[in-house]
Amino acid sequence: MSLNSIFQYFVPKDKKVFFPLFEQAAHNVVAMATILVEAVNTNDNAAREDMFKQIDTLENKGDELTHQIYLELGKNFITPFDREDIHSLATAIDDVADYIQGSANRMLLYNIDEYTESIKKLSELILQGGVELEKAVRELKDLKNVRNIADSCIRINSVENQADYVFDRAVADLFLYEKDALRLIKYKEILAALETATDMCEDAANVMESILVKNA
Amino acid sequence: MSLNSIFQYFVPKDKKVFFPLFEQAAHNVVAMATILVEAVNTNDNAAREDMFKQIDTLENKGDELTHQIYLELGKNFITPFDREDIHSLATAIDDVADYIQGSANRMLLYNIDEYTESIKKLSELILQGGVELEKAVRELKDLKNVRNIADSCIRINSVENQADYVFDRAVADLFLYEKDALRLIKYKEILAALETATDMCEDAANVMESILVKNA
Amino acid sequence: MSLNSIFQYFVPKDKKVFFPLFEQAAHNVVAMATILVEAVNTNDNAAREDMFKQIDTLENKGDELTHQIYLELGKNFITPFDREDIHSLATAIDDVADYIQGSANRMLLYNIDEYTESIKKLSELILQGGVELEKAVRELKDLKNVRNIADSCIRINSVENQADYVFDRAVADLFLYEKDALRLIKYKEILAALETATDMCEDAANVMESILVKNA
Repeated sequence: MSLNSIFQYFVPKDKKVFFPLFEQAAHNVVAMATILVEAVNTNDNAAREDMFKQIDTLENKGDELTHQIYLELGKNFITPFDREDIHSLATAIDDVADYIQGSANRMLLYNIDEYTESIKKLSELILQGGVELEKAVRELKDLKNVRNIADSCIRINSVENQADYVFDRAVADLFLYEKDALRLIKYKEILAALETATDMCEDAANVMESILVKNA
Repeated sequence: MSLNSIFQYFVPKDKKVFFPLFEQAAHNVVAMATILVEAVNTNDNAAREDMFKQIDTLENKGDELTHQIYLELGKNFITPFDREDIHSLATAIDDVADYIQGSANRMLLYNIDEYTESIKKLSELILQGGVELEKAVRELKDLKNVRNIADSCIRINSVENQADYVFDRAVADLFLYEKDALRLIKYKEILAALETATDMCEDAANVMESILVKNA
Repeated sequence: MSLNSIFQYFVPKDKKVFFPLFEQAAHNVVAMATILVEAVNTNDNAAREDMFKQIDTLENKGDELTHQIYLELGKNFITPFDREDIHSLATAIDDVADYIQGSANRMLLYNIDEYTESIKKLSELILQGGVELEKAVRELKDLKNVRNIADSCIRINSVENQADYVFDRAVADLFLYEKDALRLIKYKEILAALETATDMCEDAANVMESILVKNA
């Protein structure tokens, strides 16, 4: 029980600071995931490399947004939700962005020659998760459509479950069919980074669910 | 210093909500670890596969218990301990369950053909840690036997140290004697997941020690 | 907004407990990093092994310091900064120490025969990060030279960026030139542990930046 939770009944919640930052951060994740899906589906190597660079640039932008949320959290006496939830949500969204960039970075560094079905499927799931994340974050500011937020969170959980399944199957297949250990390591790491991006999406959904409960 | 810490001197602590959930979660970890030990020691592949499925089912049950603790935390104004400690303890117990299930899942997916001494030893250590965890959690509700909780935490720390040692030796041996890189990767990952389960047990013990200090 | 943040305007901050512990913990990290740099640069195998043992001993000392900070946090009603920041800073410094020891431990266990330029460079960056960390921690107690703390944090961020770059290049090179999968795995893991030590340094810097903002 923080002081904040008491004060929020007396003081108008200043939502003008935090919500636009959260919306931008969530939108940034969707932008990154959109480029990721495009990059793993193109056959144009030069174009793909350029897309990976765009992902890098967006990840830097996301870092700045996260940093700004932390700064506001330090400056603001009154916050719309519990301070710890604002911090956790910002961190979780930042983590999604980090893992998208980390996946792209590994594909580039490891110089992989084949964009497998599992890579494409996981990228697609990250985009789906990101879209639901952005929807939910947009509804946070008035909590008028709590049902919509809860539904998005449920869909994010389903996306994460599907990603787990795709990852597990893909890794089992690698161990069955990939006889080149170096290739196996490369692909396994890329798949793991992609799958972790959906885990981070689920972390964000968990924070939002906990915000819903507290503000019910 | 949270408001909660002040209120707890004036308001009767409502322990009826949190403690049964914690006890069930800890008991669930012991059930999972018991099946794990059985699974890595049997020679009956079909039976083992069935046990791994039981572990999956119990892990889902554990997820629900954790979720319920989080929900109660959002609803309850007054909590028996600091909110952050309740949250951390629930997360740590859930993490133990996750890594037990993760270890079982990898053994199944990687289709390993040999259950080594290190795998058996680490599984046994997880069970020992889980048993101490359950003992300590049961004592939390009245804090009458603080010494017992402290002793269990010390034993959990010792279990984690032993697991570290077993893991380090096993990995060094893999690099010395295992010439098949794919097998090395598989076993190293399984050992790492098992060892991490004992780390998570230690995390739970650390939270309980910090609860003891605050409520001394 | 914690109660603590209000009380700190009325109650003299008792800095005598926490600051010496933080300074010792940061100094301990510098001692560990100094030995690490020496160890990866020597050609004397027996001397190196002895240095790795010294790192182990110092890591245990660091664990005790962290534990003491946690204990004080449980006992002290009034803390010089937000309780969560004290906890996070202690954890981050402890994590730097853990990853230095983890890196040393892997080099020893994997029995590696060549201390590459990347290993040397990353060890050097850890030392640079540690030195800035200690400088910043020493300034925390009076916050008279906020500029100095901010500058050290910026330098820690730059160190982490450089470490990222060295790590990425080294891993890409491993995949290009190292045909022995077992060696590749060994070196990749050691480089990852070294690089993570600089990430943990950045975590500590982030906490200090957040303390600066709150106490501006």
